[in-house]
Amino acid sequence: MKITRKHNLPAAALLAAVAFTTTPIARAADPLPSWNDGTAKQSIVAFVEKITKAGSPDFVPVAERIATFDNDGCLWAEQPMYFQAFFIFDRIKALAPQHPEWKTKEPFASVLKGDVKATLAGGEHALIEMAMATHAGMTTEEFTQIVRDWLTTAKHPTTKRPYPEMVYQPMLEVLAYLRENGFKTFIVSGGGIEFMRPWTEKVYGIPPEQVVGSSIKTKFEMRDGKPVLVRLPEMNFIDDKADKPVGIHEHIGRRPIAAFGNSDGDLQMLQWTGTGDGARFCLYVHHTDAEREWAYDRKSSIGRLDKGLEEAAANGWTIVSMKDDWKTIFPPE
Amino acid sequence: MKITRKHNLPAAALLAAVAFTTTPIARAADPLPSWNDGTAKQSIVAFVEKITKAGSPDFVPVAERIATFDNDGCLWAEQPMYFQAFFIFDRIKALAPQHPEWKTKEPFASVLKGDVKATLAGGEHALIEMAMATHAGMTTEEFTQIVRDWLTTAKHPTTKRPYPEMVYQPMLEVLAYLRENGFKTFIVSGGGIEFMRPWTEKVYGIPPEQVVGSSIKTKFEMRDGKPVLVRLPEMNFIDDKADKPVGIHEHIGRRPIAAFGNSDGDLQMLQWTGTGDGARFCLYVHHTDAEREWAYDRKSSIGRLDKGLEEAAANGWTIVSMKDDWKTIFPPE
Repeated sequence: MKITRKHNLPAAALLAAVAFTTTPIARAADPLPSWNDGTAKQSIVAFVEKITKAGSPDFVPVAERIATFDNDGCLWAEQPMYFQAFFIFDRIKALAPQHPEWKTKEPFASVLKGDVKATLAGGEHALIEMAMATHAGMTTEEFTQIVRDWLTTAKHPTTKRPYPEMVYQPMLEVLAYLRENGFKTFIVSGGGIEFMRPWTEKVYGIPPEQVVGSSIKTKFEMRDGKPVLVRLPEMNFIDDKADKPVGIHEHIGRRPIAAFGNSDGDLQMLQWTGTGDGARFCLYVHHTDAEREWAYDRKSSIGRLDKGLEEAAANGWTIVSMKDDWKTIFPPE
Repeated sequence: MKITRKHNLPAAALLAAVAFTTTPIARAADPLPSWNDGTAKQSIVAFVEKITKAGSPDFVPVAERIATFDNDGCLWAEQPMYFQAFFIFDRIKALAPQHPEWKTKEPFASVLKGDVKATLAGGEHALIEMAMATHAGMTTEEFTQIVRDWLTTAKHPTTKRPYPEMVYQPMLEVLAYLRENGFKTFIVSGGGIEFMRPWTEKVYGIPPEQVVGSSIKTKFEMRDGKPVLVRLPEMNFIDDKADKPVGIHEHIGRRPIAAFGNSDGDLQMLQWTGTGDGARFCLYVHHTDAEREWAYDRKSSIGRLDKGLEEAAANGWTIVSMKDDWKTIFPPE
């Protein structure tokens, strides 16, 4: 059957009708039900409404609606330490039988003794050494499976909930709200890109190709006539601070119009996002809720937010007080 | 006006109707009108039909429909040399007044004398040296503007057409056909990622975030209180041969189910794509048309296709003969 071009028109007309009807509906129903009414919520909605309003001087075409989100402390919790560190510790315990030398070698020895404080005393250097020992040496597909397996069994030490449930319900709503309004949502995290990709699609609705993170090098190899990518014990990119805009540029190739973070590690991403042409939106999640989550900022070793608070005030960025702005923190169990 | 959730239903129903009606239309009309009927065209259509057919054992969910395309020689021409080399030569001529030393320094001196043969005698090393001298030292936004400006004036030496018109009409149809069937289409090219991004969206319908290519390092800096990314004269990644799967993994994080190339530089991308689980599709464009385009393969210094022809035959990959399979090469002027 030959159908002429004309017959595409009804489909196009339907699509136009859908585009026309969904926008007012998304706006009329509360898109952010877990947010208390207040300036933070209002600022998000006002931004989305002005950049999606056809004919408005702030209108942004769909293709340019790029929003970037930090992960640790912005989309999911990061206390008492980055969840990837728990993964690393569990991997060290699992691999210990193959590494008898770890019994006396730091930082591995402290992990095996369960002495987290001593382990973390080694700082970033020790963390990278442990990451190399546990994140390299296997194929990319094997590593993905290791992460998947861990996520089905591991529990957060305080809440006893699986880590994928330690995500912020109000931020899930922001992600969905932005996507309903034509945004592409990206993660831009200091965490390992391959540690996040196995679960971000299911948990956040963010597919692997929209995840930017730290990475180690990989190498293409033929094994028994089949190609594999082998993970090497060598850092490729650390996606933090001044390198967040670098990672954004490399992966996305456009400047975001909205960026969400929670720490000084996100400062340059927010600066880069906030100073482009046209309407811009920058938001810091401020951990102010010691009861329902954790309260920390200027002096925390994890997720320190110090300079960022000054810059947010100076530039009119939105600051979310978790205690005051969020009705709920985590999704219902 | 408050609109309840119920009102979302008509929109959802419309969307479902659209999804239902567009698929058969796309299939019934000829999606590849510039292709002669033959095994190459048939293989593309057969693959798309089987992986989109609900309930089929070969069905692939939309999220996993990733297709990667080489650029030079696969989506646009690459003779008498890579178009980016013409860009580099034009930049050297434009920048020469600021570099009096280039008059006597190779490979720059040969470029300024118009001696392309002598210039290219320096091979990849000379090309990278010239790329560093012309692609670095400015901000990312300045570089994008330089590429845009060049594309509006530069003409291909033989056809006298602007370079964005030197694209293959039959491949534009493949890109559109795949996207109509739920694919995300990516470029994975040895060419410079920032040389491609300014025009791939307009020319191919491929947005910047779906372009993978070779890159130089960039650095975040504050200039007069405004953040910029400065391009540094240092290679970051060369997206060729065994590093094409590496680039795919880094940017996309999933294995493609379809890959399109034209040279031995694409071989590992096709191997990586072709050996995943489930239905797979690999295609080589073979330059066989000396009259309408160029004819070259095993002995060409640009776009050599030698090992790839053996592997294609051994693995049952599709080989497109431009002379026999394509009704037209370039879009109408």
